[in-house]
Amino acid sequence: MSVNTIEKPPVAQAAAEAAKPVPEVTEKLVIFAWSGELDKLWPTLILATTGAAMGKETTVFFTFWGLFPLVKNQVRITGENWMQKMLSMMNRGGDEHLKLSKMNFAGAGPAMMKHLATEHHVASPHELMAMAKELGVHLIPCQMTMDLLGLKREDLIDGLDEPAGATKALADAQGAITLFI
Amino acid sequence: MSVNTIEKPPVAQAAAEAAKPVPEVTEKLVIFAWSGELDKLWPTLILATTGAAMGKETTVFFTFWGLFPLVKNQVRITGENWMQKMLSMMNRGGDEHLKLSKMNFAGAGPAMMKHLATEHHVASPHELMAMAKELGVHLIPCQMTMDLLGLKREDLIDGLDEPAGATKALADAQGAITLFI
Amino acid sequence: MSVNTIEKPPVAQAAAEAAKPVPEVTEKLVIFAWSGELDKLWPTLILATTGAAMGKETTVFFTFWGLFPLVKNQVRITGENWMQKMLSMMNRGGDEHLKLSKMNFAGAGPAMMKHLATEHHVASPHELMAMAKELGVHLIPCQMTMDLLGLKREDLIDGLDEPAGATKALADAQGAITLFI
Repeated sequence: MSVNTIEKPPVAQAAAEAAKPVPEVTEKLVIFAWSGELDKLWPTLILATTGAAMGKETTVFFTFWGLFPLVKNQVRITGENWMQKMLSMMNRGGDEHLKLSKMNFAGAGPAMMKHLATEHHVASPHELMAMAKELGVHLIPCQMTMDLLGLKREDLIDGLDEPAGATKALADAQGAITLFI
Repeated sequence: MSVNTIEKPPVAQAAAEAAKPVPEVTEKLVIFAWSGELDKLWPTLILATTGAAMGKETTVFFTFWGLFPLVKNQVRITGENWMQKMLSMMNRGGDEHLKLSKMNFAGAGPAMMKHLATEHHVASPHELMAMAKELGVHLIPCQMTMDLLGLKREDLIDGLDEPAGATKALADAQGAITLFI
Repeated sequence: MSVNTIEKPPVAQAAAEAAKPVPEVTEKLVIFAWSGELDKLWPTLILATTGAAMGKETTVFFTFWGLFPLVKNQVRITGENWMQKMLSMMNRGGDEHLKLSKMNFAGAGPAMMKHLATEHHVASPHELMAMAKELGVHLIPCQMTMDLLGLKREDLIDGLDEPAGATKALADAQGAITLFI
């Protein structure tokens, strides 16, 4: 009996441990959006909104060229020195001024793609960006790229998360579906 | 004794739980094949066939430009309206008509690459595609892209899985090695 | 009593199993560095060094065009036959001769980027490569690509891991944050 009494706690503990539900793994999706082109932003936002709609904790970390689509459409030139200004001139920001990574044909390619998308009821990047915000997708601009390009917070669209760096992105990425687009 | 009898089930259960092997995690590899170029299709198929040969449940989700290499080599023009037809003319499908993403030199680049590959016994994309099918790699064409480009199932090679969307791809991707190529 | 004695081992075992700490999952980061361009090598090395500094077991598998930045800066032409030599001439190796994937402007783009980086205290790819080695990042050249391009071990910089293939890369990638850059 005394043995039993002594035995009990570990038994109970073992049973409790065994009964304890396996800690639920949060499903996560983290996209490193490095490219700024229309044909890359499209899958980025389609995957992000789909992932969020499936209940995944979803983050898009916008870095390097990927930051340009986050610039407000009405902002023409960004940057503080002539190099940064020149880069923004050559590569105008905003999700209404995106190019295709190939077959751009001075804008004819993107126009055709957008026309086909409308015809087939595929949401535009602009609509998908709004949808992403509504679904709670974390849209994080890369702080280092902002510094490098002289982009200020007020140059970028509203509804973004706080700018952050690679450490934050990699911390979020552990255990997630990770894509570099 | 009665205590023991009462005690037994949880003990047995706890022991059984503890003895239960940790649920085996299926190793998975999911590639989002977005690019349609020779130098991107090559690593896609080398990684997919290697992964499958290693016993990983392997899926390639072909989307956007990535769909063009799945078009039958003998099919010349695809699409239903002039925009879709023009896109297929500019970017001929089939795994024998692929370009390099750089140093294409009007076809000289791909020819050199293929020559070097043959010399070093590296399988061609065409051979790797056949090997992927034999190894049970799931080759899934993206339904949305097919609609957008006016691609019909009969335009595409045999041996593919049912066309599907981003939801299917992201569901497969949970817990997998995930690459966007 | 005898029942108890018989019972004990499983109980003890169950308790022991339950007490056993959950096997600590090693956090890992595996980057497939396929591109050889400055604007792709930069994020590759920033993410790799950040990941390693965060304590993640970090591996960069350099394949295809990604191998060129590993060529020693003083090596001009690599390869054994004219095709391999021509490829190395058109796409000079070394981390001081990298181009941008877009807006290269015959070298003006990379020069501007490097200038902005220096101004904002962002380490150069050359510095990041040294840092990666110090932090114990595994830098693995792809054996198959070396064969294909006729690259010899002595053409490549020091401090790299043994050349290996896709099997090694995919084995490392299981359970890791995986990015194809």
